[in-house]
Amino acid sequence: MPDKKAILVVGAGDATGGAIARRFAREGYIACVTRRSADKLADLVDQIRAEGGEAHAFACDARKEEDTVALIARIERDIAPLEVAVFNIGANVNFPILETTSRVYFKVWEMACFGGFLMGREAARAMLPRQRGSIFFTGATASVRGRDGMSAFAGAKHALRALAQSMARELGPQGIHVAHLIVDAAIDTAFIRENFPDRYAAKARDGIVNPEHIADTYWMLHQQPRDAWTHELDIRPWIEHW
Amino acid sequence: MPDKKAILVVGAGDATGGAIARRFAREGYIACVTRRSADKLADLVDQIRAEGGEAHAFACDARKEEDTVALIARIERDIAPLEVAVFNIGANVNFPILETTSRVYFKVWEMACFGGFLMGREAARAMLPRQRGSIFFTGATASVRGRDGMSAFAGAKHALRALAQSMARELGPQGIHVAHLIVDAAIDTAFIRENFPDRYAAKARDGIVNPEHIADTYWMLHQQPRDAWTHELDIRPWIEHW
Amino acid sequence: MPDKKAILVVGAGDATGGAIARRFAREGYIACVTRRSADKLADLVDQIRAEGGEAHAFACDARKEEDTVALIARIERDIAPLEVAVFNIGANVNFPILETTSRVYFKVWEMACFGGFLMGREAARAMLPRQRGSIFFTGATASVRGRDGMSAFAGAKHALRALAQSMARELGPQGIHVAHLIVDAAIDTAFIRENFPDRYAAKARDGIVNPEHIADTYWMLHQQPRDAWTHELDIRPWIEHW
Amino acid sequence: MPDKKAILVVGAGDATGGAIARRFAREGYIACVTRRSADKLADLVDQIRAEGGEAHAFACDARKEEDTVALIARIERDIAPLEVAVFNIGANVNFPILETTSRVYFKVWEMACFGGFLMGREAARAMLPRQRGSIFFTGATASVRGRDGMSAFAGAKHALRALAQSMARELGPQGIHVAHLIVDAAIDTAFIRENFPDRYAAKARDGIVNPEHIADTYWMLHQQPRDAWTHELDIRPWIEHW
Repeated sequence: MPDKKAILVVGAGDATGGAIARRFAREGYIACVTRRSADKLADLVDQIRAEGGEAHAFACDARKEEDTVALIARIERDIAPLEVAVFNIGANVNFPILETTSRVYFKVWEMACFGGFLMGREAARAMLPRQRGSIFFTGATASVRGRDGMSAFAGAKHALRALAQSMARELGPQGIHVAHLIVDAAIDTAFIRENFPDRYAAKARDGIVNPEHIADTYWMLHQQPRDAWTHELDIRPWIEHW
Repeated sequence: MPDKKAILVVGAGDATGGAIARRFAREGYIACVTRRSADKLADLVDQIRAEGGEAHAFACDARKEEDTVALIARIERDIAPLEVAVFNIGANVNFPILETTSRVYFKVWEMACFGGFLMGREAARAMLPRQRGSIFFTGATASVRGRDGMSAFAGAKHALRALAQSMARELGPQGIHVAHLIVDAAIDTAFIRENFPDRYAAKARDGIVNPEHIADTYWMLHQQPRDAWTHELDIRPWIEHW
Repeated sequence: MPDKKAILVVGAGDATGGAIARRFAREGYIACVTRRSADKLADLVDQIRAEGGEAHAFACDARKEEDTVALIARIERDIAPLEVAVFNIGANVNFPILETTSRVYFKVWEMACFGGFLMGREAARAMLPRQRGSIFFTGATASVRGRDGMSAFAGAKHALRALAQSMARELGPQGIHVAHLIVDAAIDTAFIRENFPDRYAAKARDGIVNPEHIADTYWMLHQQPRDAWTHELDIRPWIEHW
Repeated sequence: MPDKKAILVVGAGDATGGAIARRFAREGYIACVTRRSADKLADLVDQIRAEGGEAHAFACDARKEEDTVALIARIERDIAPLEVAVFNIGANVNFPILETTSRVYFKVWEMACFGGFLMGREAARAMLPRQRGSIFFTGATASVRGRDGMSAFAGAKHALRALAQSMARELGPQGIHVAHLIVDAAIDTAFIRENFPDRYAAKARDGIVNPEHIADTYWMLHQQPRDAWTHELDIRPWIEHW
């Protein structure tokens, strides 16, 4: 497999993760996409292949160290060198503090942050001998500000941002580009369409984000030469109030 | 126990926690101090009593929900209404990302953040019916910035700050004062004296923080009337480079 | 004038500046208060004297270098060593960007920022030989975030915060305590009472800030020993949405 | 001049401004470049024309309202609709606070901030009737943090960032993309080469920024569709310590 390169998208179940995988596949990267249950990835894989790309779906519980270690080892061994790793799992819940169970508080952190740590560390382990590669984390407004009802989610997202910052400073001088993208927007998904029809109506005037445009920004970041890296940016629709 | 009020200091093992407990005890608060092993608290309790105060030591694993729930219930039932709760557990470790085990990453979060969530939530539960009380969290520079080797610690501290911000916005309008104190300093402790003698030498010129002065700021915050609350501040020695 | 100390409050025309001057005067400081027209300060001076304090009113255009230089020289020469200097001039205007004239943009900066630079620099010049003193700047939410219609005001307040940060880092190790206070609140003034009656009605439930409570926080900051200085904090009423 | 579009780069004298002008000219934009003295722009204009592009040099004192108003009116009338405006004037000086004259403090603000206000407002005035266009401001680390010796420069840069934030929130929903780019790096220029040879030596390993790579990021931002705009990002070399 000379010259082939792999991109791993952890949390490719949603619109953003899927769009990122497709975008990089169109550029020649082998898309390795995961979610807890692989069968829900079949459509995405089919779509990438129909566009002439190469894709592999993996059932992987991102919170389990052995799963993440095995996954990245397998990609490196059987598919291609891991050139890009994207952590795209959210867990946006909203509970008043008194109704935030310790189970919820832990699960949100485990999904939205601990999984990111595992992927980030294992991706770095694979990339460091080559002194190259990109590791990107998807953030949200809750990454930079706490709010009513956000104790659990903002906690996990703040911690993920701290991970991205710490890794960027440590791994940058070793050739690994680590970045954190604050996506503050309703995204064009079936979920928003069905549950927030008023919000979705803004689509007609570009008021909700097309996931393919988010994916373009991930691609752009990966293209940056190492003398001019971006480590954090935000993405919002023009009419967003923030 | 008419008019009596309790302060809980979770993590009273270090200089800061102990000084806070003593400060509030001198003002008439019943100091309830915890660490994992209660016998190490004997000196602190003796000191408070020698100064004419009232103090109770509790062995409590702050990471265990049942311990924290039982502790606060017992304070409310047997000692006095909980008026102030301070979370003061740190877990300052420094590891390169590749050497950060998942066990370390989890433990640091569990100690420095999850314990804060448990204390914060249970303190709020006790205070809300009275629409009064203060909940304070001790932060650090790692609360606001990631660094080399700080993936675990900065993650936990960022998440604790997100908790403080979220709780402040939710509970403020219900009468609970939530604040986050960024203590960025070497503190005058045996640990610093023995392990960082050069740093400790700065004591002669007030270059390391006297824990009693930190405690004064906690007391001042608790004294603020509700029309003029502070939610975040920093504490640093005059010669600190930051 | 053995042992006497002066506090200078630039912009003592409003409730906050006046309350700070009175607070320090009650502690024995000689209050030197300024605004553009001294006659409007007569009530404040009378009030301080009626409380047993000492006060001097100065007409001073804070934007004029010669005025500020002369004022501080005169305080040092004729009154007492300058121990505390507070810059408390705001200029809260709101204009859409297209309607922000260059005159307004400049004036807002000149009043809310340039005057702070002049006072800060001259106060530092007086204090540095003694290696002691406090220089405090009053900020606002616009100090940390831009908004619709806030190009001019947020610009001036951001610049003032940059001044405070830069001076704190430079002068702290020389014994001068520089701090920035973000006051995010309606304050109990005739202006709010007359122009925002609905907002003012919140006073009954402590929903607007009592300037005396703001003044208490300035006093507390000045009392901090140099091993445990605070450089930034916020002040908001409990019911403030932020 | 059907379909033609202009980019204005205020402060095109340095490497970054010149590279941005060339980049957009290669994409078909008519480059309008300014600095105080137009003759120093001759090389840049020649270079753009040699690459097949169109360029116009203007002598313009960016601090003078009449100059900026006249410049943008002339571009709109004689050249092409203004589609992109970039403010790229820095004024990086370093003085201890006591040595910062009021003249320096004012001049730095006037160049690095007031000029940005004038360009930003006039560009917005031209673009708003078309409900489209990009306005970009070049920032620096001093835009987000004060430091020793940076009272003047950090003040101007903080104020410029506040302008960008305020304009972004106000003009975004009217179709104008406003962004602030924090460029934290030594840039590959003659100045760095001659004055900081040690720093310049890092060029061999991509340790200083190639201005063309900065220009690529400006171009990318301008290409973002309005449902997925970035409002702030940083640019740093891989080995930068920050």
